[in-house]
Amino acid sequence: MISQTTEYALRAVVYLAQHPHESWTTRQIAAATQVPAGYLSKVLQGLSRSGLIASQRGRHGGFQLTQDPAKLTVLEVVNAVEPIRRINSCPLKLGAHTDGLCPLHKRLDEAIAMVEKTFGDTPVLDLLGSEDTLEPLCEFPYGPQFTERARNAQGPATDKPAS
Amino acid sequence: MISQTTEYALRAVVYLAQHPHESWTTRQIAAATQVPAGYLSKVLQGLSRSGLIASQRGRHGGFQLTQDPAKLTVLEVVNAVEPIRRINSCPLKLGAHTDGLCPLHKRLDEAIAMVEKTFGDTPVLDLLGSEDTLEPLCEFPYGPQFTERARNAQGPATDKPAS
Repeated sequence: MISQTTEYALRAVVYLAQHPHESWTTRQIAAATQVPAGYLSKVLQGLSRSGLIASQRGRHGGFQLTQDPAKLTVLEVVNAVEPIRRINSCPLKLGAHTDGLCPLHKRLDEAIAMVEKTFGDTPVLDLLGSEDTLEPLCEFPYGPQFTERARNAQGPATDKPAS
Repeated sequence: MISQTTEYALRAVVYLAQHPHESWTTRQIAAATQVPAGYLSKVLQGLSRSGLIASQRGRHGGFQLTQDPAKLTVLEVVNAVEPIRRINSCPLKLGAHTDGLCPLHKRLDEAIAMVEKTFGDTPVLDLLGSEDTLEPLCEFPYGPQFTERARNAQGPATDKPAS
């Protein structure tokens, strides 16, 4: 129900939100989020096109989140890569259903609407964890050491820095 | 969010529920539900394997619903063809998340759980329509004439009987 693309986009955005004011390369984000670099690259393109992240070229270039995690919603992230499609009209284009949905499609649309609302009501900030909850993508230390190690990461995307 | 396979399975089940005590061939169901016959065939296999429908061979053979639409839930139909997968453990297998989910995956799982509950609370009977609602798959008359016409349908799956 939650596609891989959607999950990967959320991991990337969460990672960038956890590390604001820094630029991260695809390889670095891939390592931290456990997403294959090629797949992640397409996901990041979608997020860039929607303006949720921005890329900077150059030696210290990479991706940064452009939005405030307190205002950016999960729905905006989802819709940037795989838009939620409501059922607005009869998928079978039945003449008798021109003005409304039958109970089958009405119920399906209600389920979609429910998820759309939940995601729309959830800021990315709520995904980041607090003192009382687990921290997403927490296997990597976030101090300067990691930053340095991640910047120098040259191995395959799934390689983890030595602990 | 609602996959094509799920939608097609629900259309087929709704059609069979609308026409109980009769057997319908893949071609006939395909024509009535506007689902490509090859695709539908695989969907019907999934429903058969789960015991929600049964097939009879022979001249007047075909598929019948084996369940009471008042008791059969949308969730059972969905799970027969494309099971809803909850997030029970950390998809990244992070050591620190062995005993729980981080807020990212907790929120995603909550959305999935919400849909699972809604589908589990909805009997197929509720999808069939009533006097006050539109009737699903209603473009085909349901009288003996249609039954005869549908039984004789020989054209491609997407062909509709002449009106």
